[in-house]
Parts: sequence; C-alpha cells; structure tokens
Amino acid sequence: MGDKAGAVFYQQNVPASYPVAGRIERMKSFHEDLMVKPGKKVRLSELDPNETHGWSRADADEELERLRQKMYGLQYKLHAESKRSLLIVLQATDTGGKDGTIRNVMSGLNPQGCRVASFKVPSSEELAHDFLWRVHRACPAKGEIGIFNRSHYGDVLVVRVHNIVPKAVWSKRYEQINSFEKILAENGIRILKFFLHISKEEQAERLRARIEDPERHWKVSEADFRERQFWDDYTEAHEVVLSKCSTEWAPWYVIPANRKWFRNLAVAGIVVEELESMDLQFSKSTMDISKIVIE
Amino acid sequence: MGDKAGAVFYQQNVPASYPVAGRIERMKSFHEDLMVKPGKKVRLSELDPNETHGWSRADADEELERLRQKMYGLQYKLHAESKRSLLIVLQATDTGGKDGTIRNVMSGLNPQGCRVASFKVPSSEELAHDFLWRVHRACPAKGEIGIFNRSHYGDVLVVRVHNIVPKAVWSKRYEQINSFEKILAENGIRILKFFLHISKEEQAERLRARIEDPERHWKVSEADFRERQFWDDYTEAHEVVLSKCSTEWAPWYVIPANRKWFRNLAVAGIVVEELESMDLQFSKSTMDISKIVIE
Repeated sequence: MGDKAGAVFYQQNVPASYPVAGRIERMKSFHEDLMVKPGKKVRLSELDPNETHGWSRADADEELERLRQKMYGLQYKLHAESKRSLLIVLQATDTGGKDGTIRNVMSGLNPQGCRVASFKVPSSEELAHDFLWRVHRACPAKGEIGIFNRSHYGDVLVVRVHNIVPKAVWSKRYEQINSFEKILAENGIRILKFFLHISKEEQAERLRARIEDPERHWKVSEADFRERQFWDDYTEAHEVVLSKCSTEWAPWYVIPANRKWFRNLAVAGIVVEELESMDLQFSKSTMDISKIVIE
Repeated sequence: MGDKAGAVFYQQNVPASYPVAGRIERMKSFHEDLMVKPGKKVRLSELDPNETHGWSRADADEELERLRQKMYGLQYKLHAESKRSLLIVLQATDTGGKDGTIRNVMSGLNPQGCRVASFKVPSSEELAHDFLWRVHRACPAKGEIGIFNRSHYGDVLVVRVHNIVPKAVWSKRYEQINSFEKILAENGIRILKFFLHISKEEQAERLRARIEDPERHWKVSEADFRERQFWDDYTEAHEVVLSKCSTEWAPWYVIPANRKWFRNLAVAGIVVEELESMDLQFSKSTMDISKIVIE
C-alpha cells in the first residue's frame, strides 16, 4: 500500500486495460435478479442455492478482487462526504456464511468507518427495552458502513420459531420493522439486506467439515445442531420475512450461497452498485481555503 | 480471496521462498529500538522523525504487505481463542498520520473483530463522568483488536496545553492512567501505544498538500491551524506523557513518522510481533465432538 489517500491509490492500481464493461452489465443484473420485488411472495424451494448465473469460479474471484478495491475507494468517499451511511444486514441459518461473507467481502475496508454489530441472545438490559432499541444504537453514523451479523430479524425468526414471545406480539413486528427501516432510510441510511440461501444438505456438509478439522472445533456449538431440527420452521419464517419486509427503501436480496465464491461475488457486486448509485461527493472545508497562511 | 478460513488462506499465499529470516530480525530490533523504556526521560528533539533504520521504501512496502497478511491470520486466531484482546493507541499532532496508519496498516483486517474508537471533544454526557469512563466503554472485547484514534491521553495533552481543567486535576491523571491501563492488562488486554513523531516542517508540508488538493479540502479544519501555534507546548506535553506513562504493561513506542512508508512498516511490525508473542491457541468446542451425529 502506498501512502496516498485510499481512493487515489486504488484508482491508480486498477489496470486500465481491465475488461470492465461486460462485467458491470452482469453485476447490474445480479442487483436486479437477486432482489425480492416489494410485495412478491417468496418460496425458497423455487430458488436454487447452487445458482451461479453463468459465472465461473476463476472469473468470479478476479471480479471480486476488483470489486473489493472499488468498495475501498467508495468507502473513502462515503467517509469524505459524511452525510449518509450504508447499512448491510446479513441473515442466514447457522453455517449459512455470515462470518465468511464479512471476512471475504469486507476485509479490504478501512476498519475506521466500518462497524460490525453481532446480535446474539439479548442481555437482560436489552430485554428490558423494545426489540429495536439495541438495533437502533448499533446503526452506522454518517460516513460509515454498518454491518449487522444477524439483526432485528431474529425477533421474527428464532423468536417466532420458538414462540419466545406470544404470536400477538411478534406478528406486529413486520410492520414495525418496515416503519423503523423507513425512518432510517429517510434519515440518510441506505439499507441492503442479504439472505444467504443454502440447502439443508450443504449445512450438513459444513457441520461435518467443522467436526473433522480440529482448528474449527471452536466454531462447533450445540445450538447449530439443535436449530437444525427446526429447518422447515425456519424456512417458513424466512419466507414470511422476505415476502413482508422487502420494501423500496430496504430491499431484501436472496443470495444463492451454496457456492461461497458466488455468494461473495454477488454480495460485493450489490454493495458496490449501491455505493456507486449514491453519487458520493467530497464535502467542502468549513474554512475559506484561499485565506489560509501557514506559519 | 478464497473461501477457506482466513488464516489458512494467507498461510498458503505467502510464498515459501520469501526471504523472511533477515527481516524478522530487523523487526525485532524495531520493537526494541522504538520502545520507550519505562522510567526513561524522553526528549523528542533527540529522536529523528526522518529515521528509517536502514530500510528502503521498496523493501518496506514489500515487507508491509507480508506483515498485513500475517496480521490477518493472527487476528483470526485471536478471535478463535477469544480469551484476550489487543488495544492499539494512536497519538500524534494534527496531520501526524493517525488516520493514514489505520487505513494503510489495518485495512486488511476483518472488520468483524476490529473496533476503531475516535475520541473527539467529549459530549456533555461524557463530561458528566470521569475522563476514563468513555474510554473504558470503548475497550476491545475478548478476541478483538481495538484501535484508539486519540485516547485518554488527550486528557493530559490538549487539556494540559489549554488548561481546560486545573493543574491540580490533570497532574493526577498520569498515575490514574497507569493504574487504569494496569487493570486492563491484568484482565487480558495487551496494550501498544504509538506516538507518531513528525517535525513541524513536515506538518506545514502536509497542511499545504491538503490546501492544494480540492479532494482533501474536507480534511482542512480551523483547529489544525490553531493548535499549530502551540507546537512547543504540545511537544512538552507529549514528552511528559512518554516519560511518565511508558510502563511494562503498556509501553509507548515513538515512531519516526515523517516518512509514511516507514511509519506504516514500524507499526505493522510491532503489532505482528506482539500478536506472535501471545502464542494464540484455537479454543476447544463446548461439545463432545466424538458424539455428534448429523441428521
């Protein structure tokens, strides 16, 4: 890495001869193909988790590297503008690849200006508030990219599957979530929500891989196996979320995620497209630059 | 990036033929050469901000890339162990390169598990508490790398230079800081504190560069020029901090920082050495792995 500002560095280091045009068209179609149109009823069984939309792994890896560099430059401008922010919500079943997506797609970002929030079992303090309280506190500030590793959607997923609160309570939350996200969007937060879609067989494969590799034992938890028993209930709960909560201001994307390399590519592509569509601008100085004298 | 766990990926991608031995010896001497020995009285005028310890820029850039990859792998193990954490404190005068160090040294890290806290003018809520209250809240959790962009040292730097609180108050803070940091260290937080040392001429150069480049005008603030008038007072305040608060449990490093590429290399080298010295271990599963059956 050089010592110039990030955006400049990366612009200089993307080869001019890179065959970009065809790729960008393809990424745009990801954006369109993978988005859940507001109001559409989603059936996950109709969406193939092995889908790769014609991409080969080699092409995808190369494109991902280019997208990571673009993302870094765009993050720099988001920070330099400091008027808006981006919120990325990741949901998936256990082993669905939330951690891996963050590691592979977002590791090139500047950690200053990128805030990851993991939502686990709520603390007693959090439970003493409404379900959106802890979520609101974790939202990205102006100029930041926020990443939610799980989110408020847990309150209509695990909570619904296990009846942790009565139906009369959780059934009102879909509308509450839509209203909450609209408030965020109207206050300058762009929201992208990714559901990482894997098959039940792929989950078994991944759990097995963790068991067989001693260096991954730390990731093996009882909850993964317990929740696997409720696969069908989770599928239904996810379908309701995707059908009720994909809105114009906060769309859901269903990412075919059996192939990790395609998952990474699709998420990176959608994030970059979104940041590009924001038309980010360097903000001006609060001083009259022409009058500055350095002593 | 591949889809395997981060540590594995990077280990595979560091060329085996890389001439490591000589370099590592050099990095160890950075660690030793740049640390302020506890109890030593520091005079910044005796430390050359242009120093590069025999490194050429080309060698340094290559080594930095290697160190960034190592750091990524070590961060993964720190997270997998989840018993201890690392806190990196950055202090410098304006334009000293705090942001640039984070961007250039830490951008390869996984943002999940890396938390940057910037300490600006305290809010009214923060001022209603003792000066370490907001700092304690921002400390890294187990398994995390925390980065302080400015820190509690502001309370004996800008606060001392401008007498924001009476001397009777700030003069007690050096001891309080040492005690506070000792508590953190005894509870599993490794602490590295970097003072980025630039010359007054270099600061003028950097301010000029910002003024001349419209894409950097957003970084130009009145405070930079105002505080520059107090250069000598800040030098003295920094010397007191470095002399009184470099301890065995939380040492200060004075990083020659006029050359950004050397600054990046030195910080990366010290961070990697520190993480390596922790002998990080993958933690075990809470389950009896041999009894697991996947249905």
